[in-house]
Amino acid sequence: MANKEIPYKIYLSEDELPRQWYNLRADMKNKPAPLLNPATFQPMTFEDLRPVFCDELVRQELDDTTPCFDIPEEIRNFYKMYRPSPLVRAYCLEKKLGTPAKIYYKFEGNNTSGSHKLNSAVAQAYYAKQQGLKGVTTETGAGQWGTALSMACAYFGLDCKVYMVKVSYEQKPFRREVMRTYGASVTPSPSTETAVGRRILEQFPGTSGSLGCAISEAVEAATTHEGYRYVLGSVLSQVMLHQSVIGLESKTAMDKYGVKPDIIIGCAGGGSNLGGLIAPFMREKLRGEADYQFIAVEPASCPSLTRGKFAYDYCDTGMVTPLAKMYTLGSGFIPSANHAGGLRYHGMSSILSQLHADGLLEARSVEQTKVFEAAEMFARVEGILPAPESSHAIRVAIDEALKCKETGEEKTILFGLTGTGYFDLYAYEKFNNGNMTDYIPTDEDIQKGLAGLPVLPE
Amino acid sequence: MANKEIPYKIYLSEDELPRQWYNLRADMKNKPAPLLNPATFQPMTFEDLRPVFCDELVRQELDDTTPCFDIPEEIRNFYKMYRPSPLVRAYCLEKKLGTPAKIYYKFEGNNTSGSHKLNSAVAQAYYAKQQGLKGVTTETGAGQWGTALSMACAYFGLDCKVYMVKVSYEQKPFRREVMRTYGASVTPSPSTETAVGRRILEQFPGTSGSLGCAISEAVEAATTHEGYRYVLGSVLSQVMLHQSVIGLESKTAMDKYGVKPDIIIGCAGGGSNLGGLIAPFMREKLRGEADYQFIAVEPASCPSLTRGKFAYDYCDTGMVTPLAKMYTLGSGFIPSANHAGGLRYHGMSSILSQLHADGLLEARSVEQTKVFEAAEMFARVEGILPAPESSHAIRVAIDEALKCKETGEEKTILFGLTGTGYFDLYAYEKFNNGNMTDYIPTDEDIQKGLAGLPVLPE
Repeated sequence: MANKEIPYKIYLSEDELPRQWYNLRADMKNKPAPLLNPATFQPMTFEDLRPVFCDELVRQELDDTTPCFDIPEEIRNFYKMYRPSPLVRAYCLEKKLGTPAKIYYKFEGNNTSGSHKLNSAVAQAYYAKQQGLKGVTTETGAGQWGTALSMACAYFGLDCKVYMVKVSYEQKPFRREVMRTYGASVTPSPSTETAVGRRILEQFPGTSGSLGCAISEAVEAATTHEGYRYVLGSVLSQVMLHQSVIGLESKTAMDKYGVKPDIIIGCAGGGSNLGGLIAPFMREKLRGEADYQFIAVEPASCPSLTRGKFAYDYCDTGMVTPLAKMYTLGSGFIPSANHAGGLRYHGMSSILSQLHADGLLEARSVEQTKVFEAAEMFARVEGILPAPESSHAIRVAIDEALKCKETGEEKTILFGLTGTGYFDLYAYEKFNNGNMTDYIPTDEDIQKGLAGLPVLPE
Repeated sequence: MANKEIPYKIYLSEDELPRQWYNLRADMKNKPAPLLNPATFQPMTFEDLRPVFCDELVRQELDDTTPCFDIPEEIRNFYKMYRPSPLVRAYCLEKKLGTPAKIYYKFEGNNTSGSHKLNSAVAQAYYAKQQGLKGVTTETGAGQWGTALSMACAYFGLDCKVYMVKVSYEQKPFRREVMRTYGASVTPSPSTETAVGRRILEQFPGTSGSLGCAISEAVEAATTHEGYRYVLGSVLSQVMLHQSVIGLESKTAMDKYGVKPDIIIGCAGGGSNLGGLIAPFMREKLRGEADYQFIAVEPASCPSLTRGKFAYDYCDTGMVTPLAKMYTLGSGFIPSANHAGGLRYHGMSSILSQLHADGLLEARSVEQTKVFEAAEMFARVEGILPAPESSHAIRVAIDEALKCKETGEEKTILFGLTGTGYFDLYAYEKFNNGNMTDYIPTDEDIQKGLAGLPVLPE
C-alpha cells in the first residue's frame, strides 16, 4: 500500500481493541529471574505476595508461561472511553527534518491521566474491586500514575491512598488537585504516617523524597490497613502485561496499512510503556519471524541500563520490597534533579533487563537540554506538547531520522509518545528562559550507589 | 439502528472531515445587524476593516449570503493533526444519572490548546500568511485562544503577540509558558506598551484587566505595527464560520448512526463554539426541515443573554472597535470573579444574539458551584477533566437528563465539551476545599453597565 494513503492518524475501531493482553515472558527463552523474598532470599511464592498484592495480580506476576490473558469486559469498557489510542504518522516532523525516514508514534496522552499509566491502573483497580477490597495504596512521582489510579478508583468506587514524592507534591500542586478531584487522598512522602517514612526522615532530614521511598511507605500502608492492597505503576511484570495493549494496537494498526517498523523506540523509567510497546514485535523477534531494532532511552542523570549493574536489588529505598534481578544503580542511589520525574527510578523492569542482557534491546542515555530541544521542535510541528519523559523517545527518534537523512535510508521509525506535558510547564519555563542544566552522575556517584547492592547467599 | 451498536466514541475518517465551512447567516431570514464604524456609525466596509483584519477574513466577516466556503488544503492538513474530533456517547454518565435520556458530547479538548479555539486560529493564521504578513496580535483571557493562536503561528512561521488579561497572566503562568514554548510573546494587559493600555491604567490603577481591555490593546498594536493584523478568537461571524466544523462533524457522525438530537447545548462566552456546534442543525430548523431545542448556557456572573440588552455596543472596553448589535451588559461592565475566564465577556456574537431575539435559541444562566459539582461528577464517570467553561454545558445537559428521568422521556441530548481543565486546577482546588463562592450581579450592577451603552444617531 502506498504511503500517501496513510492518514495522519490511524484509529482502530472499538471492535479492534485487543481482547487479550500478551505476556512476553511466555516467549522468552531466558526468563526474567524470579522475585526473591527479602527475608529468605528464596523465590517469592503466591502466599508471600498475597498480603501485598491482589490475588489475581499475584497470579499474573508469577506466570511466565501463559502467553495470553483475557481482558475482562469491564476493563475493556473502561478502555473504550479513551482507547484505541491513535497511531500517528508524523508527516510534519518528517518534513521539518527533511528526512527520508517514515516516523510514527503511538500517542497515549489523550486521557486525563495524561499518559499510558491508565492502562494498568484500571486493571489493578478492577481486580481489587473483584476481590472485595476497600481500597489500594500507591506511590507517585510526577503524578501521572497517581492520577491514573485515582481515576480508576473513582470509577470502581475504591478508596485510593497516594504517597506522592515530596518534591513533586510541592512543585506539582495541580496533579495533586486532579487526584483530589477524583477523590484520592494524597500524602507527601516521606511522611510521619508510616514507620518507614519516620525512619527515612530521621536519617535524611529535609529530604525531598524519592520514588523508592514513597514505595516503601505505600507498601507499609497497604499491609497495615485492613482491606487494602498495594499497587504499582511500573517495573512489575503484571504492569507490562497490561501495557501490552499499546503494542498490540500499534501492530494491528501498522499491519492494516502494510507497514513494518525498522526501529522501535521508547523512554524507559521502570520500563512498562516500552515493554508494552515492543511486546508483540519482540515476540516475532524471539520466534525468528521478523527482526526489529529496539531502543530504550533513559535520562543521563539516572542511567540504570547504560551504567547500572545487572544484579538482584530492592525495588524501594526502605528495602521492604522483594528483590528483583534488574539493571540497577542501587536502591540507595539518589537520582539528581531532572524534569522527567517518571524516569527517576534506580532500577528497570526484570523483563527489559533480561532482554537487554541478552542483546535484544539497546539502551541509550540522553541529556535533558537535548531532550527539551526535541520536545520544543516536536510541539511546534506536530502540535502536541509532550511530557519530558516521552521527549526522551522523541530525541532518539529525531536522531535516528537525521541519520537516515545522511545515509538516505528510508527507515520506518515507531516511537511511544507516552504522555503530555501540561503539568510540566515549570520545566518548559526553565527551558524557555535558557536556565536548564544537565547533570550526569560521576563514576564515583555510580559506584557509591552500587556499593549498596545486597549480597545474596551463594 | 439499535443504540447498543453505537460505540463509546464515534471517529469519522479523515476523508469525512468537512471540505467546506458553513455560513449560518446565509440561511437566516433576519440577518445579524452589520458592524458599525465607531466614528461615523455607518456599516463597516471592506476598506474600513482592512487595516485591522486580513483581507480574506474581512470578506468572510462581511459575507452573509454565501452559504459555504471551501476549507483550504493546508488548513485541512492542519486539522488532520487533531480532527475529526470524537463524538462521544456518555454511557457512563447516563448510567450514573439513571436517566432514560441518551447523552452525546462532541469533545474538542484533545489538542494542546485544550479547546475548540484551534479551529479558527489555524484559519486566521493561514490567511495572514497568505497575505504575506509578518505577524498577528490578539488578546487572551483564560489563555486557550492565545495558546491556539501561538500553535497556529508556529506552524505557519508567523510572529504572534498576545495581550493576556493580567489576572490570568499571573494566575495561569502555565498557559503563558505553553504560548512561549510555541514562540509567542506574551504581555500582561493592561500594559504600558499601548496608548489605550496606559489610559486604562491611569483611569483604573491596579486593575486586573479584562478581555475587552486586552482587545483594545491588541487592536492598537496591530494597527501601529507594519505587517501585522489583529485576530479575534470569538464573537465575530468569521470565527463562527470556522467553528462550523464542530457542528458539521457532529451531524455527519450522528447521521451515520441514524441519531437525531432533541436538545443541543453549549456554553456561550463570545458564542463561537455554540454557534459552530448548532450551525448545521439550525440550518435545518431555519429551513423547516427539522426541529431542535437549542440552549446557550452562560455564567450567572456574566449574563449577557439572560439579563443584557439587545443593542449596539462596542466590542471592547477602550471603545476603539466597531460597534456590534448584540446582547450586551455594556462594554464597561466588569464581570465578577468567575473561574470560567473564557465566559467573562460583556457581549455575545451578533449571530447568536439575533437567533435569541428571534426565539430560535434559548438561554440559561448557572452558578459556578453548581457547575463544578457537574464537572466533578462528569470527570469521575466519563474520565475527562472538563474546563470550567465547558462544564456550564455539562450542568445543563445533566439537568435536562434528570428531567427526562422524572418524565420518563428518552430524549437525545447533544452538548459541546469544548475543552479540558488541566490549566484550571486552582479553581478545582478551591472547589475541592469547599471554598468556592457564587456571585450574581445585582440589578443595579446590570443597570450601571447598560447605562454606558452608546447612543446612536437616529
